[in-house]
This record gives sequence, C-alpha cells and structure tokens, in this order.
Amino acid sequence: MTIKTILISGFLAFSQIQSALCLWPMPSNLDAGNSFLRLSPKFSIVVDVHNAPSDLTQAVQRAQTYIQTDKLQRLVVGRGANDAQNIAKAPELSKLTVSLTGKRPTQSISAEAVLSLEDRSESYSLTVPADGSGATLTADSTLGLLRGLTTFGQLWYQLQNTIYAVQTPLTIKNDTPAFPYRGFMLDTARNLPNSFSVSDILRTIDAMSWVKIIQTDTQSWPLFVESHPELSAEGAYTSDSAYSQADIQNIISYAGERGIDVIIEVDTPGHTGSISFSHPELVACSDASPWSTFANEPPSGQLRLASSAGIDLASSVFGSLASVFPSKYISTGGDEVNTNCYDDDAETQADLKASGQTLDQALNTFLQATHGTLRKAGKTPIVWEEMVLDFNVTLSNDTIAMVWISSQDVASVVQKGFRVIHAASDFFYLDCGGGEWIGDDIANSWCDPFKTWQKLISVNQIYSFDPLASLTSGQTNLILGGETLLWTEQSDPSNLDPIVWPRAAAAAEVFWTGAQLPTGTPLNSSEALPRLHDARYRFVQRGVRAIPLQPQWCAIRPGACDLNA
Amino acid sequence: MTIKTILISGFLAFSQIQSALCLWPMPSNLDAGNSFLRLSPKFSIVVDVHNAPSDLTQAVQRAQTYIQTDKLQRLVVGRGANDAQNIAKAPELSKLTVSLTGKRPTQSISAEAVLSLEDRSESYSLTVPADGSGATLTADSTLGLLRGLTTFGQLWYQLQNTIYAVQTPLTIKNDTPAFPYRGFMLDTARNLPNSFSVSDILRTIDAMSWVKIIQTDTQSWPLFVESHPELSAEGAYTSDSAYSQADIQNIISYAGERGIDVIIEVDTPGHTGSISFSHPELVACSDASPWSTFANEPPSGQLRLASSAGIDLASSVFGSLASVFPSKYISTGGDEVNTNCYDDDAETQADLKASGQTLDQALNTFLQATHGTLRKAGKTPIVWEEMVLDFNVTLSNDTIAMVWISSQDVASVVQKGFRVIHAASDFFYLDCGGGEWIGDDIANSWCDPFKTWQKLISVNQIYSFDPLASLTSGQTNLILGGETLLWTEQSDPSNLDPIVWPRAAAAAEVFWTGAQLPTGTPLNSSEALPRLHDARYRFVQRGVRAIPLQPQWCAIRPGACDLNA
Repeated sequence: MTIKTILISGFLAFSQIQSALCLWPMPSNLDAGNSFLRLSPKFSIVVDVHNAPSDLTQAVQRAQTYIQTDKLQRLVVGRGANDAQNIAKAPELSKLTVSLTGKRPTQSISAEAVLSLEDRSESYSLTVPADGSGATLTADSTLGLLRGLTTFGQLWYQLQNTIYAVQTPLTIKNDTPAFPYRGFMLDTARNLPNSFSVSDILRTIDAMSWVKIIQTDTQSWPLFVESHPELSAEGAYTSDSAYSQADIQNIISYAGERGIDVIIEVDTPGHTGSISFSHPELVACSDASPWSTFANEPPSGQLRLASSAGIDLASSVFGSLASVFPSKYISTGGDEVNTNCYDDDAETQADLKASGQTLDQALNTFLQATHGTLRKAGKTPIVWEEMVLDFNVTLSNDTIAMVWISSQDVASVVQKGFRVIHAASDFFYLDCGGGEWIGDDIANSWCDPFKTWQKLISVNQIYSFDPLASLTSGQTNLILGGETLLWTEQSDPSNLDPIVWPRAAAAAEVFWTGAQLPTGTPLNSSEALPRLHDARYRFVQRGVRAIPLQPQWCAIRPGACDLNA
Repeated sequence: MTIKTILISGFLAFSQIQSALCLWPMPSNLDAGNSFLRLSPKFSIVVDVHNAPSDLTQAVQRAQTYIQTDKLQRLVVGRGANDAQNIAKAPELSKLTVSLTGKRPTQSISAEAVLSLEDRSESYSLTVPADGSGATLTADSTLGLLRGLTTFGQLWYQLQNTIYAVQTPLTIKNDTPAFPYRGFMLDTARNLPNSFSVSDILRTIDAMSWVKIIQTDTQSWPLFVESHPELSAEGAYTSDSAYSQADIQNIISYAGERGIDVIIEVDTPGHTGSISFSHPELVACSDASPWSTFANEPPSGQLRLASSAGIDLASSVFGSLASVFPSKYISTGGDEVNTNCYDDDAETQADLKASGQTLDQALNTFLQATHGTLRKAGKTPIVWEEMVLDFNVTLSNDTIAMVWISSQDVASVVQKGFRVIHAASDFFYLDCGGGEWIGDDIANSWCDPFKTWQKLISVNQIYSFDPLASLTSGQTNLILGGETLLWTEQSDPSNLDPIVWPRAAAAAEVFWTGAQLPTGTPLNSSEALPRLHDARYRFVQRGVRAIPLQPQWCAIRPGACDLNA
C-alpha cells in the first residue's frame, strides 16, 4: 500500500485508520505500507563508511539513543495499547546499514554543513523493509546521512518495552529539500545578562536538527571579538555577560556536528548604540532624545559610517569574525538605518563635507569596505532588505537579502536580481502578538497578531504563505529559503522553548517539503496537524518545552476536533 | 519625604531618581522616605504571638528565607553598584516584630484563608524606621500578617553580600484590599496526562502568594471523588492521570498555609462528556457529530439533567467535594449549556415529558438539587453568568456569578442583584491570542488578541479595565473582585509560567489596590512598569519563569523606553 492510498482513505475516514505517517518535515517523496515492524533488542546501526568521520559516528550514536529514550506512545486512543497483537506478530528489524554512494569525497558533517548553499548535499535515500531484512540509508554526503538518520528516528513508538514502527515497508528515494536555506534566527542581544545561556542555545540547536533546520542566524551578538575585546568588555551589560571565545567555539562545533551552519550578524551601521560604551567618539545620536526620532527602538545610536575610524572598526570586526565563523555567510545587517541621526550629527556632516559624499555615497563606501573584507575572507554577505530597496548603493549580485518588513517586498528584491531569504514579519516573526513592550503605551505589538503555525503551513490558502508567490519561473531560483526569527524584547530563557516550538518546525516543513506533499496535495494544516502533534510530543520527550497544539483528547483522535468534524 | 513627593518628582524626571517603590501590589496607602537601611547579619523576625499557629511560624521562616535568597540587584544602571557608599553609611535593621492586635481570636492562616469573603481579614500595618530601630508588623489576623510579610519581603535588594532597602522610613497603615476576591483559575482538565504536576500547581500557588492572589479556582478537575471513584478511574486519559486524594490534600494545605483558598469547580450540566466513560447512560449527545452543533468545543456531551440518576450523581459528587474542600465556595459551573443536545436526546425528552417540565424547569430542578447539597454542607455556590442571564431558573441571592463572555455583561448580572467575579474573556483570559486550536481552521483564536498587562492595569483609560464601570454606587458592593483564567487547550507545563506571569500579577494589583494609587493618580501602566519589572525579576530569582516585559536596557532605565521619552 502506498502512502497515496493511505492519505486518500485518510481524507475519507481519518479517525478510523488512526495512522498518520509521522515524519516531519514530510520527505519530498515516499512510499509507505501499513505493516508493523519491531525493533530487535539487538538492533544496531552499522556504519559502512571507510574512515567514518567522528561526527558521523556520534550522529549514529545519538540516533540510537533517541530511539531507545524517546519512549513515545502513539497518539491514538489507547496510546498504542491496541497495537499489542500486531506488535507480537511483527518481524524484527536488527540492522540499519548506513553508507555513502562514493560520488563525493568523504567529509565530516561539520565540513559539509558550512559549504556554500550551492555545494551542499542533504539528499538521502532510506529503505525499511517490512519483513525484518536490513534497512538501508545511503547518501552522497555525511550531511545527507544525518538527515536520513533524523527521518529514521521519527518512525519509532514504544509500548511497554517494545519499540516498533507501524508504516513499513518504507521507501524514500533521494529526499532533498525544496530550499537550501532553512533557518532560525535568535536575537541574543536584548536581555543579557539574563539572556540565553550556552545550554539554551545548544538545546535549540538540537531541536533544530530534529526537523532539519540548518541555519542559525544570531543577531547583534554580545560576543567577544578577538581584535576588539573592548567592545564586549564595555558594551555588555556586565563583564560576565558576553559569549566568550570558548562559548562560540562550543556553539559552532555543536551545531556543525548536527548539520547546522551558524551565521553571525553584526548589524551595521544602525543598531550599534552599544559601541558607544567603548568608542563614544564613533557613535552618532547615542541615546538621543526623543529616541523615536533617531531610531526604531531605544536606545538610539549608529556607527559614524562616514568616518574612517568607524569604517575601520566595522571592517576589523568583520575580519575578526570571518576567521572565527566557518560559515560562508556573514550578515552585515543594514536594517532601520535612521537618516535623522546622521543629518543631525555634526561629525558625520563634517565627514561628508570633507569627502564630498552624500549619505548614500558614504553608505556605499562603508558597504564596499565591510563587504570587501568579507569577500577577501571568502565570505558572502547577507543584508536586510533596505540595503537593496531603500539606498542607492552598489551590492555585488551574489549578496543575499533578508526580507523582513513585508512578504510583499520579495518581488521587488528579486526584480533587482538579488537572492532572497524569507524572513518577513507578517509570517515569520515569532515574537509578535504579545503586546507592546515600549513603555507608556497600551497598544498591541507592532506586528500583531501572533503568527500561527497554521497560517505558515497552509501554502496557497488565503492569508497563508507561499515561498514563490508573485514570481516568474525564471525568478524562483533566487529564493534560497526562509527562517523564523525571535526578537527578544520580551523573551529570554523563561519562554524560549514555548515561543519557538513547534512553530519553527512548521516553517522547517514549508522550506524542506516545498509547496506540495508527495501526494500532490498542497501543504495544508489539516494534513499536517497529526504529524506536527507527533513531532511536538517527541520534542517534549527529548526535553524541549514545545507547547501543545490541541488538548490531548484531540491529539489522539486525528480529525475529531476539526471545525467541520 | 512622602511617596507623594517621590511620585510627583518621578513624573518630572523619573530616570534621574532611579528609585521606584517596588511593592506589588501597591498598598492602599503608604508613606515612604528615601533613606538606605541595611539588614543586619543578625536580623531576625520575632513572632510576638501567644501560641503562634505553626503555619504562621512557617510563613515567617519563608519570609526570612526569601530575604536571604532573593539576591535581587536593583533595576538601575549599575545594578546597585552606585549604592555602595549609601549602604556603608546606613543604619542596620536587626529586628521585625510581628504581632496581632487581639481584636480577633488567634487562628491559623489556613483557617483564616477559607472563611467567607465577608469574614476574612487581610489588613496589616507595617512600619520600617530609617534609624535601625525595630520594624513592626501588626494585623488583626494571621492572614493579615502573611500579607504584611509579603510586603516586607519586597523591600530588599542585594549588593554583594549586603541586603538593603532604599526607601525608608516606610509606614503602611491598615493596608487592605479593594476587593476581597482576587483569583487565578487554572484549567486542569485539558491536557492530562501530560498536564500540570502537583509541583507545577504548588509553584503557581507560591507565585500567587507573592502578589496576594488568594483564590485558585480549578475547573473540571480530573480528580478522585471518594463517592465516585469510577469517574476518574474511567474518565481520565490514563489510570495514573487523575489527582489522588493525597494530591488534593497536599494542594489544599499548601495553599492554605499561603493564604490561598482553593475553590473547585465541576462544571455541570455542560462540559461533562468525560462522565460517559464511566456512566454512558447518563450522558446526552456524547461525542456527537458534528460536535459544533452540540457543544462549543469537542467532544460534546452533557449530563442528562432531567434524569433522576443524573441529578443524584451530580449531587453526590458535590456532596463528596464539599467534605474535601474547606473553602466556603464551590463552583457548579453552568457555562455553555447546549440546548440542541437535550432537544435531540430521546432520553431527556422522555424524562421531561414524564415530569411535565420544560428544559428550563428541569435545569432549575437540577440546580436546586446540586445547590441544595452545597448549602446543606455550608457552601455558597458559584456559577457562570449564563445561569443568571440565559435561563429561567431560581438562584438564591447570595449565589456568585462569574462573568466570562464579556465585561459588558457585568451590569446585567448586577442588575439582577447577584454578586460578581470579573472573569471576562475580553480582559482576563490568559490563553487568548495564540491562534486557533480547532483543526482544519487557520483563524486566530476566538478571543483574540492576547490580553496584555498594560490593558489590565490602565484603569479608566480607553479600552482598559475598570472593575466598577457602569455601576451605580449602590451596586458596587456586589463586585467581589476578579480573576485571571488559563484555559489549557494550548497550555501545559511547557508554558505555564510564561503564559501566566507576570500578567496575573497585573490583575492582582487591579483588585488589591483598586482604581487609585495612594497618590490619588489612577492606576496606570507607566507608573506600574518599573514596579512590575521588579516583581518579575523577583519571580525569576524565586524560580518562576515569568517573561521579561522589556529588554533589560529599558528595565534598568525607568521611563527611557517610553513612547514619548
């Protein structure tokens, strides 16, 4: 029986079959039966890879551990108790063999994860026979094997001491993501020193890897910069509140082993007020009043972009970061540059006059310097959309633009020929809807309402997200993917997990699976709900505090709580 | 210097004085200076009460512990480092003497906490001299002493190893709440068995006590009922997912020691589908399709209110609960009774015909039976507003109505002469704004948007809450107070703390402090923000994951992130 048949009958009588294929994100193709398969107590994953990199071996060990420790009971009435007879009769699987195709040289997962997006290979093929004969996982790269191990790990449930799958035989051929960039951005700048600990970040990286999110983009990091230790020494809230070199190395390597590329952003030239603690002479409109004239949020303060010392500092910081972060990508920011700030700044006006430049020309000079430094180090710059749309500056065509103001702006950025990362506040901002954080104001949050997972996942429905909306077929290759973002004016470790999960997982499916399910049906929240429940319950079993999507009464009765049930 | 002066100057130059009086909720009156006072290393709280009840002694010990373990640094630039000189010169406080006025017989806090609302006394007076001479706390009741200890505990900050206060001398005279009922309702029915553990509930009770919330109301508890063990044995999701007798006793006594009255609700006759697992013969429209015809949320199912067996079961359950819960109050529910369910139910129609009753008459008979059982046990029934407004039934005039559909309905309930607990979904529902949980629907939540703390606290401002709106002066005594509510379709331990705190604390101030601050200024979010930051940071220090209201940059610079700063 193919998945096609299951899903079609599912639409007719979902609650009767009680059997949602619980993979998240849904592979680009699959063929699944409805036979039970038990995991042998002697089950092992055999790595048939010559000189297997240590992070592949570790990934295999993690996969084995999750299978043993998830202890997820099926989300059906009885939580799997009714499966006992089928389990007793089921064949036993004792081996999964993991191998590479040999089409690429063998590299570590960490090395594969930081290749350029064009060069990365995440494709894998997985076969799990129903008769107990060995399962196989093959891929061109260790990164692809990691993705396949993640899929394999989602097949298993537990009843008492037996671990079992319910939809074998399973065949997935060359599952590969629709979009190479699938990210999550964590703003680590707002709430120090009560901000995210390294362990909060590592837990988030783990959770990302479970749903194949592969970029993490960290904004305005209060981090130690080797060339400029004074920035964090003076600019962080307290001396112990910056991430140290060791913290950063720990995060990068932990992420790399999980197939995640850590991209750093240091926002320039706006949002740089904190530089004034160490270099007051380089910051215009520092903590000026009223802040709303000079910045989108307090405190105001922008690097003096026309001063050679300002340019040197920024270039030097990016140069230093380029040597620390292995990713091919670094974001130089560029959002919310406030022109009032520079117009009112005597030093900037003097600098402009001395060099005979307009503000846009000075911004261009600034960008050539910072981007030049990055290119020299082999990096590709990422910028926020304003750098493409709002200023008369020259950007190299391979620059990547993150569209945040509105998803409507994607078409304009693409029209200018730039590659796009979807990060629009009308879909992907996880912090919206919690009320205004600005004082003396009882309004709702500026990007109301709360962005629901349903709106994200229902591709092509009214008000829902479509990564390729309004683009010609010749333009679609400019869409690299997208990311959810958590700006942390009102977030810290107290609500990190529940505000991010499972919503970020919904975006992960949009950008892995693409517009259509393997059946050809568009992605939709009705089909997705039981699978997302499954993913969420698995997250909880693994220690991530993802919120429930429905009462458990509904979760174990797929479809019963639908509007029209 | 009086607080009046501080606040007036505060409005002029808030960020200069860097000194918000950080009590939450604000007492009804106070007089505070701006002198520093150090806590002596030998500081002790002396209980000058003859035969002090053990829960008073324990409350004193908890207060001492919090003062030592809070380690809260002041929310000012430098986090108190600039206080060092003032602290060094400050007198030392070595004693707080706690005593009763003798106007009431000495009883335990637990006993005082479950008196009727009219008989409860929470008033206290507190004096903390600036010269180091002994501080005093007096009250008519141990419950009042507990409230005063809570206030005393909010005065202290820590710098390195020194604990100190910054606003002495402090005098509070007979601080007493504006409204006797200040509650938090936790729905414990939705997400079992992954629902709230006893320790989640105890932590919530602790947090409630820190801001003087004194009722906890727990809806549709999947609890062991002595007279009907089959209800939880069959009706809970799994056999181990009901709260046991020991759990309940633990919760009741833990709450009582903290001055909190635990009120149980068993919703009848609607929302009783879970009875069908043990008594299918007593439930009409059990899990009927489409559910939306028969209930406001799935699964449908209502107790057969016209059957004598149904009436007997409900009465017996309430009789059993009345002997377990010491509170004077029990809620019999009464929301969302669906008439289609009974109209379509052959058994109910037969019962009605046999007794010659209309549905309203049968509902009245049902209510007389259940409320009669409660009254015989000395309890006062609480009902949802529909019982007063939508059905032709006779309720004793002391019945209390919770208004949930809209705050606009309060006037109608009061007009009928019933006492009211504010619980309106347009202000107090903490679960709103997170998106729809019904499947197959990409709408926002029905009670959008998210209810912000600002909207609650800004009494008399447009769109904000006023407990006495539209009432004549003769009617205001019918307003007992109010409560925030967490319905848990999308909540469980993963997000309990961050979804409740600090918003529930905002409501706590509305109902303790009333419409005006001691200065005569209406309650408003600008004045409240620095104090609520303080309360929130103290919550975090005590292990409750309350969310941040602003970035810390703003929190330590009162007013600097105001809209018009």
